[in-house]
Amino acid sequence: MSVITLINGPNLNLLGTREPDLYGSERLGEVIQRLETRASQAGHQFTHFQNNSEGALIDYIQEVQHTASIALFNPGAYTHTSLALRDAILAVRLPFVELHLTNLAKRESVRQHSHFTDLAIGLVSGFGVASYDLALEAALYYLASTTSSFRGIPHGHS
Amino acid sequence: MSVITLINGPNLNLLGTREPDLYGSERLGEVIQRLETRASQAGHQFTHFQNNSEGALIDYIQEVQHTASIALFNPGAYTHTSLALRDAILAVRLPFVELHLTNLAKRESVRQHSHFTDLAIGLVSGFGVASYDLALEAALYYLASTTSSFRGIPHGHS
Amino acid sequence: MSVITLINGPNLNLLGTREPDLYGSERLGEVIQRLETRASQAGHQFTHFQNNSEGALIDYIQEVQHTASIALFNPGAYTHTSLALRDAILAVRLPFVELHLTNLAKRESVRQHSHFTDLAIGLVSGFGVASYDLALEAALYYLASTTSSFRGIPHGHS
Amino acid sequence: MSVITLINGPNLNLLGTREPDLYGSERLGEVIQRLETRASQAGHQFTHFQNNSEGALIDYIQEVQHTASIALFNPGAYTHTSLALRDAILAVRLPFVELHLTNLAKRESVRQHSHFTDLAIGLVSGFGVASYDLALEAALYYLASTTSSFRGIPHGHS
Amino acid sequence: MSVITLINGPNLNLLGTREPDLYGSERLGEVIQRLETRASQAGHQFTHFQNNSEGALIDYIQEVQHTASIALFNPGAYTHTSLALRDAILAVRLPFVELHLTNLAKRESVRQHSHFTDLAIGLVSGFGVASYDLALEAALYYLASTTSSFRGIPHGHS
Amino acid sequence: MSVITLINGPNLNLLGTREPDLYGSERLGEVIQRLETRASQAGHQFTHFQNNSEGALIDYIQEVQHTASIALFNPGAYTHTSLALRDAILAVRLPFVELHLTNLAKRESVRQHSHFTDLAIGLVSGFGVASYDLALEAALYYLASTTSSFRGIPHGHS
Amino acid sequence: MSVITLINGPNLNLLGTREPDLYGSERLGEVIQRLETRASQAGHQFTHFQNNSEGALIDYIQEVQHTASIALFNPGAYTHTSLALRDAILAVRLPFVELHLTNLAKRESVRQHSHFTDLAIGLVSGFGVASYDLALEAALYYLASTTSSFRGIPHGHS
Amino acid sequence: MSVITLINGPNLNLLGTREPDLYGSERLGEVIQRLETRASQAGHQFTHFQNNSEGALIDYIQEVQHTASIALFNPGAYTHTSLALRDAILAVRLPFVELHLTNLAKRESVRQHSHFTDLAIGLVSGFGVASYDLALEAALYYLASTTSSFRGIPHGHS
Amino acid sequence: MSVITLINGPNLNLLGTREPDLYGSERLGEVIQRLETRASQAGHQFTHFQNNSEGALIDYIQEVQHTASIALFNPGAYTHTSLALRDAILAVRLPFVELHLTNLAKRESVRQHSHFTDLAIGLVSGFGVASYDLALEAALYYLASTTSSFRGIPHGHS
Amino acid sequence: MSVITLINGPNLNLLGTREPDLYGSERLGEVIQRLETRASQAGHQFTHFQNNSEGALIDYIQEVQHTASIALFNPGAYTHTSLALRDAILAVRLPFVELHLTNLAKRESVRQHSHFTDLAIGLVSGFGVASYDLALEAALYYLASTTSSFRGIPHGHS
Amino acid sequence: MSVITLINGPNLNLLGTREPDLYGSERLGEVIQRLETRASQAGHQFTHFQNNSEGALIDYIQEVQHTASIALFNPGAYTHTSLALRDAILAVRLPFVELHLTNLAKRESVRQHSHFTDLAIGLVSGFGVASYDLALEAALYYLASTTSSFRGIPHGHS
Amino acid sequence: MSVITLINGPNLNLLGTREPDLYGSERLGEVIQRLETRASQAGHQFTHFQNNSEGALIDYIQEVQHTASIALFNPGAYTHTSLALRDAILAVRLPFVELHLTNLAKRESVRQHSHFTDLAIGLVSGFGVASYDLALEAALYYLASTTSSFRGIPHGHS
Repeated sequence: MSVITLINGPNLNLLGTREPDLYGSERLGEVIQRLETRASQAGHQFTHFQNNSEGALIDYIQEVQHTASIALFNPGAYTHTSLALRDAILAVRLPFVELHLTNLAKRESVRQHSHFTDLAIGLVSGFGVASYDLALEAALYYLASTTSSFRGIPHGHS
Repeated sequence: MSVITLINGPNLNLLGTREPDLYGSERLGEVIQRLETRASQAGHQFTHFQNNSEGALIDYIQEVQHTASIALFNPGAYTHTSLALRDAILAVRLPFVELHLTNLAKRESVRQHSHFTDLAIGLVSGFGVASYDLALEAALYYLASTTSSFRGIPHGHS
Repeated sequence: MSVITLINGPNLNLLGTREPDLYGSERLGEVIQRLETRASQAGHQFTHFQNNSEGALIDYIQEVQHTASIALFNPGAYTHTSLALRDAILAVRLPFVELHLTNLAKRESVRQHSHFTDLAIGLVSGFGVASYDLALEAALYYLASTTSSFRGIPHGHS
Repeated sequence: MSVITLINGPNLNLLGTREPDLYGSERLGEVIQRLETRASQAGHQFTHFQNNSEGALIDYIQEVQHTASIALFNPGAYTHTSLALRDAILAVRLPFVELHLTNLAKRESVRQHSHFTDLAIGLVSGFGVASYDLALEAALYYLASTTSSFRGIPHGHS
Repeated sequence: MSVITLINGPNLNLLGTREPDLYGSERLGEVIQRLETRASQAGHQFTHFQNNSEGALIDYIQEVQHTASIALFNPGAYTHTSLALRDAILAVRLPFVELHLTNLAKRESVRQHSHFTDLAIGLVSGFGVASYDLALEAALYYLASTTSSFRGIPHGHS
Repeated sequence: MSVITLINGPNLNLLGTREPDLYGSERLGEVIQRLETRASQAGHQFTHFQNNSEGALIDYIQEVQHTASIALFNPGAYTHTSLALRDAILAVRLPFVELHLTNLAKRESVRQHSHFTDLAIGLVSGFGVASYDLALEAALYYLASTTSSFRGIPHGHS
Repeated sequence: MSVITLINGPNLNLLGTREPDLYGSERLGEVIQRLETRASQAGHQFTHFQNNSEGALIDYIQEVQHTASIALFNPGAYTHTSLALRDAILAVRLPFVELHLTNLAKRESVRQHSHFTDLAIGLVSGFGVASYDLALEAALYYLASTTSSFRGIPHGHS
Repeated sequence: MSVITLINGPNLNLLGTREPDLYGSERLGEVIQRLETRASQAGHQFTHFQNNSEGALIDYIQEVQHTASIALFNPGAYTHTSLALRDAILAVRLPFVELHLTNLAKRESVRQHSHFTDLAIGLVSGFGVASYDLALEAALYYLASTTSSFRGIPHGHS
Repeated sequence: MSVITLINGPNLNLLGTREPDLYGSERLGEVIQRLETRASQAGHQFTHFQNNSEGALIDYIQEVQHTASIALFNPGAYTHTSLALRDAILAVRLPFVELHLTNLAKRESVRQHSHFTDLAIGLVSGFGVASYDLALEAALYYLASTTSSFRGIPHGHS
Repeated sequence: MSVITLINGPNLNLLGTREPDLYGSERLGEVIQRLETRASQAGHQFTHFQNNSEGALIDYIQEVQHTASIALFNPGAYTHTSLALRDAILAVRLPFVELHLTNLAKRESVRQHSHFTDLAIGLVSGFGVASYDLALEAALYYLASTTSSFRGIPHGHS
Repeated sequence: MSVITLINGPNLNLLGTREPDLYGSERLGEVIQRLETRASQAGHQFTHFQNNSEGALIDYIQEVQHTASIALFNPGAYTHTSLALRDAILAVRLPFVELHLTNLAKRESVRQHSHFTDLAIGLVSGFGVASYDLALEAALYYLASTTSSFRGIPHGHS
Repeated sequence: MSVITLINGPNLNLLGTREPDLYGSERLGEVIQRLETRASQAGHQFTHFQNNSEGALIDYIQEVQHTASIALFNPGAYTHTSLALRDAILAVRLPFVELHLTNLAKRESVRQHSHFTDLAIGLVSGFGVASYDLALEAALYYLASTTSSFRGIPHGHS
């Protein structure tokens, strides 16, 4: 049994309350509940954390380094600006799947680069809240994989 | 019942025969068989096409425009060079999930930009052959989704 | 009657105490008092918030979304670095006037781009502490305007 | 008593006659009349000039250098292309407030840089025709200011 | 019956007198006469204007906005430098065909970008004085076209 | 009597069947028939070729080098990516008029540069299917021209 | 007697616990103790502060402006992203020696620029934990220096 | 006997009246008189023209093409922005010496490139009003030179 | 005995028939015959392939991976555009000597970068058809070399 | 006992004689004497070399490769231009501490990049002549260090 | 009486012997003799130095700092590459006129930037060997000038 | 009989003594002897020169301009920095084959551009010491070639 933790960056606490015609009306709490159920069916524990502050997110990543096996990470706008979060990830070497609600390639140019993707196991983006479900599936593949076919592509800093 | 088609670009016919320690020893044929099974369990038909030639891939996309509902598309190296394939996708307006075996953010700079992502429903990359399985799951979410929550993020050219 | 809120970013709590020959000796508290008087004369309520932390500023913007009608916003150095603050503004769709004490065009190159101006109603910059007074006048014009002549230029994300 | 002069660049003579749903139906003549009244209430004289030709605008700036105390300057499209107008301003050292009807940050990239802002006292942009009123208020602050708090930020070429 | 107007920018009054081995010895007056004949055969009126001054060209475009239906526009060197002319075109929304004597792609790099092409119906360049004749033919197609096939590609600012 | 050949690049076989509200419902076959008639009226032979494959287009250009006098060339998306097609044109030195249905200046940035224009006699773009008719007229001018006035602008690589 | 304060940015609290083969196993607490001893031998007081949050670091710099004479500053990842910290340093004009554990020139390109070095007295980087000892020696030179030879190179913003 | 003409661009009519501590107090009229004397001593006629308008300068260059042998040309700020003036020079092929009062390499980056230098016989810049005298000397060398040693470096467009 | 294969990209089938004053009149067939003779003298087998299509070249490279020991590769214009060919080379890890008829450094800027050189054993370019002969000599050195002195510089992807 | 050698590049022989108010009046000879004393106290031998010629510096580095253990290297202006010196360092693999009198981040942009830092053990810059003393201390730390904590950061070419 | 020294960089010793049709057949010795005569007529002493080595040129500049009042400096190809020569000039603060035989604006792009012009009194370029004569005249003006009109433009590092 | 001269730039005197596992243990002297033998068998004289100083290399190139027919030139690190060497080559117009031991495309980016290749007959790089042998073969081809097929690609400055 492993611990899977979901980490959400700034403004994601508003999920489901803003622009429901675009993102749907499902709230962050509902998503978390569904992921929790799926993870526990697969025999794993599920935890989560959301904060608007860069420093608080770094603190959390440092704290879970010895308890969590893998993270689902949606850094929000810090995707494009936070080297300090990148350093936290590098320091604790926590494997993670990066995910985004929207397809970043359709956004403005300042959102075309992520400080995290080259450290991630892989990337899921553009499927709305379903990105959370798919990222969890990807994490389950990762945890289940024991042959080099999957782990052969290291999650470390290339 | 919808038709889901898998389109593979250049050199992907070599899957499973080159660098097995990196990509695993599963051949393209085996992956296709597994996807076929999963799609048919979900009540859909599954077809596939691979070619090393840009022109042949364009021909195929033009042909399936009236029969396929969604594509799983791994353009291989044409991801970064083929505007003509992009035009074919734009012309036939076929919804698709873009997928890559490797995490492009870990590759050389010339592979950092995709001509397709801003047209895709979403992107799955970096999970080795499991990227194919996750892309199929994403397609199934897309086909099942009827509310604006999912379809609200259009796959068209923004 | 509307609520007008003044939001000040990092280091602006030092106003009036640093470099008085450059910025004058008027403290932030005195400016706030003068703006409060002017706003109440015009029949509006006036609130204010200053913080050095990006996360605390995001929290505040989320909180006032249902109570404030318009903001006067001086993001300080976060003008140039914080996409997360930009996202908060985008999420709550709070109309605001951007203001700066100094004329940014006279500053170093890293300060030439603002992450906020394209979301603002308009921009006032370079008039020292009088920038606060002029921004308040601009907000009063905005609240008083009912014809398309003024509101025709939307404050949303173009 | 000082002389305040309003200088309008190319195509601004069309104000109020083009795209009234966007800019309102107030004509340039009406704006000028309102500014004249406000300036004379404050004890100052008000003059104005509009021309589509770069050379004629330079001629005017050279002429008013000994009579005007401050200018309100909307260079129109010359904002982005005219170094010769910039030189005229530099040569006669006329203090000025730069103003724009629209929020330039929402326009195409070629309009992101102004040849004038680093020479201006300050900038007012994006409030439609109210930008003229706010620029006049800013000029009145400037003329009234005698302490270093305001004048400490020089209008010269940094 | 529509009015078609030909607008020529700086130095085009020299046509036929400079470098006859390159541009031929046909003078601007002769070209105008031939276009006039062709336009009147097609049942339209033809007018023309040439000037070396940016301001005079803007004045002319503002004047013909209510009388001309379409323009043939060769902006000469202002093609690459005049945002003010672009603004005049945007303000009066006069449909026009852009034309050049030479193939700009064969010229120096500073001539590779036009401030007008994205506003034009279309572009004809590189056929020497025959560019004028072809631009007139294009204008006749435009005036004759009533179905969406032609007008579907709007001449406005995209 | 000369041979005029029309060469169409990838996806242009779909003309008239995709987005009829944008491009009209005229099919490629109909356009070809009309051009054939006009060419034969002018005393010339007309041939045509369309293919989605870069290699097939190169083969065709090599084949017609001794039979065709001039080409009308719409390279489609290969306009921006194919140096190999450019080399074919350079090798056989076939004079050609470049044409595009749409006004490229209104398209995304990756379509702002053409690998062919600096080799073309001239360029016609943005007039929908009428671009084909105008390009044919341009070719007829070229074939009829015997003085230096027209041919003085060489079609070779400058 | 002067106060020397050590300021450490994000993730530096992990010193000695991550990658001991790279950075050694000496913990931050041990380093602080050694520096404290050396400073007090030289007749100075030593204080220190570490935090993962940008806002908390700004708060601290504002607080020590009247008590500390010089800082040893390792901004961690904020070296490259925080203009707000730069502004805090500019506002309080605290002299400081910038230091880094690693040689930034050997890191990825996004770490090649520091927002602080042009404000620092000088820079020590690349000597592992010994960078702290060398930075303290540099600070002692600075405090001891009274002739223009050393102070001639101002620490202000050039 | 040849005609040497001096052409001055925008704002140069102010010479001697602005910033005398920088440019000296000699007026443009005095400079012209001295050059006239020197030219007539050398057996040549001297004419001059100054204007703030781009169009008027183009008109003048077109007019003197058959009477003047060489020009001394100080384009002022049009040095960096006017392709239309460049075209006028190219069209009439008037040999000229480019001159500037100030050393452009010491000015802001937008003044680092001249549209004229590659067309000039040569360049004299940075000697204050003495640049006019030196440019005249250079023109006299040019007129006197008959061997290939000097004329070998053509003034045309390379 | 090894197999040496010569691979020629697009337009190289025209060798000897185009621009004989530049490339000589030797046809591709004659070059192949001479190389064949030299290779067989050295005890090796020689094969060759030319095609204008990117896909056909990829197919060929995949086919010869188990039979050929080394390739002489002239990718023609695909040198600069084909990542798919690069991937094919990477996949089959076929050692090759890159060769070009012309000196690429004398060509236009778009031909300054090769997608292949960093994968090649080495490069021979600029010697006309003799580049083929020199590349064969280089291949013979490579096959004959058994010490680290030569093989120490690996042909793999660095 | 190790040999520590100090290498000074161009113009550093002028130390102490130029701009004494900036750099102090201490001559290079005096600095060398002090370093010599400190090195010998620490049990090491100290040598030094200064030259204005790039070639002579390369010769020296080649000569000391077998005798010196570490260098203190101030490359002067060659810091930014000399790849040949970089090659010499790479060839002989001499460990070195890079040092500069001034803080390069305060100098013009062309001095922002060093060809040496990514090869150095570490960097000391901006402390005037004290930079020499601090660099020597850093070298002593390096020589004394035997655990991976210090040597773990290799001086080689990353 | 002042000393004027002429400094010539690499390859200028070949003057008069290479490409006489371009540069004339006058040798460097003859030019020097003529300049010497002119300088002595004006009451000054004239010295000269040529060398192909960067180091030797630096040595010379250091040597003449106390004897020469002004230099005529043609740095040859070091114009574009030598920061060390720039440093030598900066260190000794020798006023100089920069000169070039050819018009650099007509040369390849790598020669468009000079490391010296922003330090020079002024620049003379493009007049063949007459550039030497004109630079001497400029130096004589400089030495004769005593009012701020000329010296107001400092030769120092801006 | 012609003279072939080998010119080696900085650090190449170390050949065979540094990194023998990479470059082999063959010394420069041994290479020279082998080339000498091959050249004399082909009926030519062979000379050679190596120096670390840019000036000395320029002197040598100037000296051999009348005696040598062709050079084999390995500029070492001056490949990327020395315009003065480029000028020397341009001045004496000595035909040369450029050669490098390593494949520059595998080196750091600053080594991607050569100041010499566009002047060379051709380029041989990446074959270790065998690059010398292949360059000599290329030179022999060049000397033997009398038809335009080879000489058609001029070695001059394009």
